[in-house]
Amino acid sequence: MNTILTVNTRTGDIRTSTCTEEELAWGGRSFIAHHLLGKTDPACDPLGRGNPLIIASGLLADTPVSTAGRLSIGGKSPLTGGAKEANVGGAAGRKMARLGMKAVILEDAPDDPRCRVLVIGKDRAELLDAPELAGQNTRATLSPLRERFGEQVGALCIGPAGEMRLTAAILATTDDTGVQLRVAGRGGLGAVMGSKGVKAVVFDDTGARPEEPFDRKALSAAARDLGAILKADPKTDNRHNLGTPAVLMLCNALGILPTRNFREGRFEHAEAISGEMIAELIDKRGGEGRRGLPCVQGCTIACSNVFADPSGKTTVASLQYENLGLLGSNCCIGDVDAVAELNDLSNQVGIDSIEAGAAIGVAMEAGVLAFGDAEGAKDLLRQVGAGTPMGRIIGSGVVTTGRVLGVRRIPAIKGQAIPAYDPRSLKGIGVTYAMGPMGADHTAGNALETAKTVDPQGRTGQVETSLRLQIRGAILDSLGVCLFIRPAFVKDPPLSARLLNTRYGWQWTYRDVRAMGLECLRAEQEYNTRAGVTEAMCDVPEFMRREPLPPHNTVFDVDREEMRHIWEIKLPEDIF
Amino acid sequence: MNTILTVNTRTGDIRTSTCTEEELAWGGRSFIAHHLLGKTDPACDPLGRGNPLIIASGLLADTPVSTAGRLSIGGKSPLTGGAKEANVGGAAGRKMARLGMKAVILEDAPDDPRCRVLVIGKDRAELLDAPELAGQNTRATLSPLRERFGEQVGALCIGPAGEMRLTAAILATTDDTGVQLRVAGRGGLGAVMGSKGVKAVVFDDTGARPEEPFDRKALSAAARDLGAILKADPKTDNRHNLGTPAVLMLCNALGILPTRNFREGRFEHAEAISGEMIAELIDKRGGEGRRGLPCVQGCTIACSNVFADPSGKTTVASLQYENLGLLGSNCCIGDVDAVAELNDLSNQVGIDSIEAGAAIGVAMEAGVLAFGDAEGAKDLLRQVGAGTPMGRIIGSGVVTTGRVLGVRRIPAIKGQAIPAYDPRSLKGIGVTYAMGPMGADHTAGNALETAKTVDPQGRTGQVETSLRLQIRGAILDSLGVCLFIRPAFVKDPPLSARLLNTRYGWQWTYRDVRAMGLECLRAEQEYNTRAGVTEAMCDVPEFMRREPLPPHNTVFDVDREEMRHIWEIKLPEDIF
Repeated sequence: MNTILTVNTRTGDIRTSTCTEEELAWGGRSFIAHHLLGKTDPACDPLGRGNPLIIASGLLADTPVSTAGRLSIGGKSPLTGGAKEANVGGAAGRKMARLGMKAVILEDAPDDPRCRVLVIGKDRAELLDAPELAGQNTRATLSPLRERFGEQVGALCIGPAGEMRLTAAILATTDDTGVQLRVAGRGGLGAVMGSKGVKAVVFDDTGARPEEPFDRKALSAAARDLGAILKADPKTDNRHNLGTPAVLMLCNALGILPTRNFREGRFEHAEAISGEMIAELIDKRGGEGRRGLPCVQGCTIACSNVFADPSGKTTVASLQYENLGLLGSNCCIGDVDAVAELNDLSNQVGIDSIEAGAAIGVAMEAGVLAFGDAEGAKDLLRQVGAGTPMGRIIGSGVVTTGRVLGVRRIPAIKGQAIPAYDPRSLKGIGVTYAMGPMGADHTAGNALETAKTVDPQGRTGQVETSLRLQIRGAILDSLGVCLFIRPAFVKDPPLSARLLNTRYGWQWTYRDVRAMGLECLRAEQEYNTRAGVTEAMCDVPEFMRREPLPPHNTVFDVDREEMRHIWEIKLPEDIF
Repeated sequence: MNTILTVNTRTGDIRTSTCTEEELAWGGRSFIAHHLLGKTDPACDPLGRGNPLIIASGLLADTPVSTAGRLSIGGKSPLTGGAKEANVGGAAGRKMARLGMKAVILEDAPDDPRCRVLVIGKDRAELLDAPELAGQNTRATLSPLRERFGEQVGALCIGPAGEMRLTAAILATTDDTGVQLRVAGRGGLGAVMGSKGVKAVVFDDTGARPEEPFDRKALSAAARDLGAILKADPKTDNRHNLGTPAVLMLCNALGILPTRNFREGRFEHAEAISGEMIAELIDKRGGEGRRGLPCVQGCTIACSNVFADPSGKTTVASLQYENLGLLGSNCCIGDVDAVAELNDLSNQVGIDSIEAGAAIGVAMEAGVLAFGDAEGAKDLLRQVGAGTPMGRIIGSGVVTTGRVLGVRRIPAIKGQAIPAYDPRSLKGIGVTYAMGPMGADHTAGNALETAKTVDPQGRTGQVETSLRLQIRGAILDSLGVCLFIRPAFVKDPPLSARLLNTRYGWQWTYRDVRAMGLECLRAEQEYNTRAGVTEAMCDVPEFMRREPLPPHNTVFDVDREEMRHIWEIKLPEDIF
């Protein structure tokens, strides 16, 4: 993975370059952070000619490490106005890595974005006109691409929302089988791809000869050790069985499950949309329904599902916690089939289901439709695809929806919708939302897993906890692995360095790995400062500091002054 | 003018306080700037509980100085996210001053904004429920208020757009006769008033005994001297005859008249919407049409008009240059009657006609309607009042309209629509738009008047010119006088200090006046920095640096680095 493919989307020029020494040590999120800071103008218009769309391989993308091969998508976010990395499982990451690519960079932008497909293979990179895909949903884009270029390809695409440059637009991809739709959801990067006039990127690794790792045997051994630790961890089994929805009842118990546009933290119909219920329904209904699927080839956790309707026909794959929390409880929709449909609709039109659920919740607060109105919610998402004025409002994310509809209670931080963990009763994640360069992003440092050791409702230790979690997140996102392999690094911190050293022949220590994570965050912070995302934006929304959240009646009360000094905290050696 | 009335719009508490020594030396815009910086949280949500709506009297508001009595309205702008002052003529300013009020401050905000009227008189301040005014247009609000409280009152109100908290919402008021509708247009302050649940503020100066000036005779003499200089200036006569539309043909000749969503700087039908044509039509049509009216009692320039339709019935009063440029040429509408109607519609629903014209231009670029489609444009403005999704989009201003409709060419700086002077061929005003704390605001430092001495298309001297103009603007806005009295201060700079000294018994020099202006700007700048309006936002939109503007094919090319140092420039003594 030592080449960078740069496509000028205005002129059509495509060039390949070899990574510099410095670039070789970056991967995924850290590549994006350093590239944005070093090579682009942070003051650029996110949908203008100066913002690149970066697709970057994680450092371990071409290794047999479980979960490795997640892709990082990045650029300046049209929602937050800052640096953004959204990462996604699926087939494309490993294929891109097998093609030896560190990154694919879509630069500049045409005046009139057309509908084009970028096809990348061994010794091949072409930008093809594809007018037949214009306006198509993500599924209706990815399926014909797999037909045209072969089942072996991995493809990324945008839906109609991305083509319209709606700022909540996602990039979608599939797993190897083409069954699951996986999305790089946060930050509106689909709109950035839309602004380039690129509807899809296809990676075909036919005939590719991946790089030889520095020490194949030692790398395999390290990967096996990681797999063994994971296997022995009880969380792995729970995730395998129930997927991310496993946490729903826990969040409900903690009182952090967004309900009624973040008015409550506990949902009266939580059980009906719980992980346990979903597993039960999948098993009972049979048909196309499945549990325990991997999203990336070779993942041993395999936490994905195919959720089928009562007749056994697929509704959505995979149904996840964030969708249940935002499109379900937050909208007071306690019907899991309806939530699954809403999830699928978001994926198909191509918008982030977190933004979608938050925006619909705000529209419900504005009286556009009633809380609990699933049919009305589906109609809104169909309107996004159709590009009606109301659809475009929703597709622009929760902040625009709230502003345009005159709603004051907007659950967003730095322009981005808050995920399904209300920070009033899980304060560590609130610090991440407020201070982290990504804005309200649960994968950037989720304090849920520290809830047993750090009182989630207390103020003490939240800032330090967040910093540790954020560094860890930056490391995992740079390796291109899933957050769920953390138990392996907790048990054996030097393992992270060992994996890199056996792959690349480096002599890194765990300290170097930690430094990589911190430097990634610092680069993102510096980019944000220059981009104008400043301290003034670093807080939870006003209502979360004033309005107590039932059932614990907590407000977010972590001191802003303490949060402000997060980057100066001296951390212990072990941050996992 | 030494009292401050503070109304807590959440609790209903009303209290009166006496100005501190420091506050006494502030007026209008400078009062707003220092109050915002010193007494509020710059990071607050503009439509939340922490942002005050400030109504402030200019320092000369209770003097006989020509044009004095313009009101300053201020707060954190929901459009720019920074400090905002919008000022307005009409009757209310002098009445507020006669009541001895330095400022009226609406603080906090109710959870559910109702429709209320704040009535202020001698020894009286009451917040009255007024459900009958809910949803009413500005005219249909101000007329019944004048009926209910008497023709002698001055009232400020918002339209349905403000009640909906649409971010392009204005405050409207009338002149003494109730004929002209005047608006504090920029920055969305109507939405701030809407967020307080206050539909209107009524000033009744019946029985008020204004303060005695320090030296009445000397003040009258100074005011007379000012009047005499104004009278002798040829520009005064031109303004009296043609009003602000007098500059339309000049702007067209300079190639800075926004046309076709800022694609061109010259409009093929400019003559049809020119000041000369308007004057001719007013005279020819007769009926209710009028020219040469004052907007503030006692103004000797009297540049306002009543524009009537062919049957002689009033369409709008007063029809002004900005409306002609934005709602006319920018939308390719060359029919002056249509532009007048669009202007009136903007006023009635209560949105800024500059934002409206720019937003409609962007909607035309997006293909929502065709350029030149006056009926379609009227329909969009009616939709604002009706609160349809598309209406709410337009009412949220040009940036939201552009984002939601997926348009890249958005003529805005710091979130606010660019007025009718394209900065590519009038570069000094571009520096004001980019660097000034108000964002794209022509009254904050308009280089049109320096176009004869500083080449408007050249890069040289633009930054210094802008700084001088900005300081001057801040002074005039703090005195509460019109920009059009500048000739008096050009001819006799110490006159500005003489007016203040005779009114207040101060010993100010012209240097002190200049310092007041600069300190006002610095306070606004500092507030903006803390609010997160930073250097990253300090530039013209991307397309204006890349896309040449016909007919002169200029781009905006003033060096960002040079602009960045604007506040460090050492100025000559005379900045008028």
